[in-house]
Amino acid sequence: MAPVNNNDEHPPKFKVTIVGSGNWGSVASKLIASNTLKLSSFHDEVKMWVFEEMLPGGEKLTDAINRTNENVKYLPGIKLGHNVVADPDLENAVRDANMLVFVTPHQFMEGICKRLVGKIRSDAQAISLIKGMEVKKEGPCMISTLISQQLGVNCCVLMGANIANEIAVEKFSEATVGYRGNRDIAEKWVQLFSTPYFAVSACQDVEGVELCGTLKNVVAIAAGFVDGLDMGNNTKAAIMRIGLREMKGLSKLLFSSVKDSTFFESCGVADLITTCLGGRNRRCAEAFAKNGGKRSFDDLEAEMLQGQKLQGVSTAKEVYEVLKHKGWLEMFPLFTTVHEICTGRLPPTAIVEYSEHAPKYPMTGGPTSFP
Amino acid sequence: MAPVNNNDEHPPKFKVTIVGSGNWGSVASKLIASNTLKLSSFHDEVKMWVFEEMLPGGEKLTDAINRTNENVKYLPGIKLGHNVVADPDLENAVRDANMLVFVTPHQFMEGICKRLVGKIRSDAQAISLIKGMEVKKEGPCMISTLISQQLGVNCCVLMGANIANEIAVEKFSEATVGYRGNRDIAEKWVQLFSTPYFAVSACQDVEGVELCGTLKNVVAIAAGFVDGLDMGNNTKAAIMRIGLREMKGLSKLLFSSVKDSTFFESCGVADLITTCLGGRNRRCAEAFAKNGGKRSFDDLEAEMLQGQKLQGVSTAKEVYEVLKHKGWLEMFPLFTTVHEICTGRLPPTAIVEYSEHAPKYPMTGGPTSFP
Repeated sequence: MAPVNNNDEHPPKFKVTIVGSGNWGSVASKLIASNTLKLSSFHDEVKMWVFEEMLPGGEKLTDAINRTNENVKYLPGIKLGHNVVADPDLENAVRDANMLVFVTPHQFMEGICKRLVGKIRSDAQAISLIKGMEVKKEGPCMISTLISQQLGVNCCVLMGANIANEIAVEKFSEATVGYRGNRDIAEKWVQLFSTPYFAVSACQDVEGVELCGTLKNVVAIAAGFVDGLDMGNNTKAAIMRIGLREMKGLSKLLFSSVKDSTFFESCGVADLITTCLGGRNRRCAEAFAKNGGKRSFDDLEAEMLQGQKLQGVSTAKEVYEVLKHKGWLEMFPLFTTVHEICTGRLPPTAIVEYSEHAPKYPMTGGPTSFP
Repeated sequence: MAPVNNNDEHPPKFKVTIVGSGNWGSVASKLIASNTLKLSSFHDEVKMWVFEEMLPGGEKLTDAINRTNENVKYLPGIKLGHNVVADPDLENAVRDANMLVFVTPHQFMEGICKRLVGKIRSDAQAISLIKGMEVKKEGPCMISTLISQQLGVNCCVLMGANIANEIAVEKFSEATVGYRGNRDIAEKWVQLFSTPYFAVSACQDVEGVELCGTLKNVVAIAAGFVDGLDMGNNTKAAIMRIGLREMKGLSKLLFSSVKDSTFFESCGVADLITTCLGGRNRRCAEAFAKNGGKRSFDDLEAEMLQGQKLQGVSTAKEVYEVLKHKGWLEMFPLFTTVHEICTGRLPPTAIVEYSEHAPKYPMTGGPTSFP
């Protein structure tokens, strides 16, 4: 990592700020705060920018966090560490930090970046924990790219099979740091996040790691269809495998730098498994198939998700647009079919019938059909 | 495929015999028989060698199969195809065949090979569908190698996420043919097995494909422990990923020809998923962990499996012996820990604690620690 200016201190120490304080952001602050206390190369204090809210009792959320050491709204019952300091002022929270952890809902990132231009240290490093970037026709707009370009900083990503509430209670899990060029920086992030129950490894493939985090949601929709149709574990495993293959194939077509090995990491196969076993994408898709596609996803979301939206359905649409734009529809029968089922053009049973896209045995040939 | 001598016929046709007629063998005969009828390069008739048994009503099993066109004992209710002919005489069954499909319990293969020496056509090709070969101290003794060496034939393998009863009712599934050198022969096997609900692809990696079929059972034991301890999907996904990584790592250490890409095929990740979701290895390991390791596997097997034995526990032992013999124990904390839990040396909770094997964060570094 580039030498940093820590004013009068010797040796220079790294100072961490977490931008975001939802469920996953709060768990991240707990992981990080436990390490900054132990590791001498970090300042003990971890700042957490909190979007200020008034709690029902009239107390500010930041005050409650700083008083109780818990995020009483988004992660109640879990101590974050006494060295976590909630700050409602975004600019103040980032001012002194040279390690910035971004973990907000993805739709807020563009606005946050705009507010931060010129307000961060010139030697700052960033990492994004944000899954679910936008896939535009010309290709996906990665959150790490947005951060890099808007703020002029290097940006890594951390993804993986990470159900926040399970990690909060210290159940064993893994994660993957995707980095671009500098292994030392990646190692610093690995150090900052790793605990005995949270095993982090680094992988030189930002785009591959980040795309896994989005594309898996499309596969989870497919897995949910299989569940809803009672097709059994065998078919589900096949669909998950084909999904992983298409995740890999599309990522490599979009970014030639993407590595096969990334998909063996936590961000790849493990996150896919978690998402296809639990998760709301899978659950709503199961209900959709059980209803024979007669109730729309909008309808099911409204009933099942209390206002939250499914990422898988919108990502499937965005991926479809990219595939169509590039002339790649036939190369990705699973992604294509998921979208066509979601829109009602095909019945849920089509998830195991690719006859429209490939005349005979569509799955033969394996991943060699991709570059 | 090498030109074959089909006596007076023009053009030469391939003649298939299936050696074995259990649950999976019967499903294989159904798949194959549907294709030999359709494809002109195969003889319609498919012979199936059946280990003769007397049925409760006094009829011979072969007679019942040939009369009803069903394997009334091992796959009742499923028509095999009128072109499947059961034959109790092993030598007679194989005499004219130039495509031999081996699908017996693995412990019978050595004896069967001995009986077949000098009794098969010199131009015969073989394929093994047998999962679960023996892992000896000096390395695994692969069934395909046994067949090749004993009979002097080329032997491919077919593995994958294949629950026989689900494929029998034509639920969508996939499989992988592993082949050594000759792509044409592999394609012939792919043709012979592929149906719209059974998608087969070929992979030039016999050892990798075959090792997947055995080693996944060790991972299924680990996944069962996680289930029994109620650790959640996140931890289970992590353990499955680490297991896949160790499967890949060990296979590559044992056979330098093994390819990473094999583990993305049905034989790899998909079979692992099926086995870790259902399956008796997972189920017994779950019960073992629920009982805190206080009831032995022998005890649980006797209660839960009606006389069948778990492959995962014995494979874990065999793998442990290989690792110890080679000095590789510390490189494979999951495989090692599974065996130590099975033998009672460690408690089931150790499945997520590798502190004995690696001092700090054992999982960092990812698969790069393997060749």
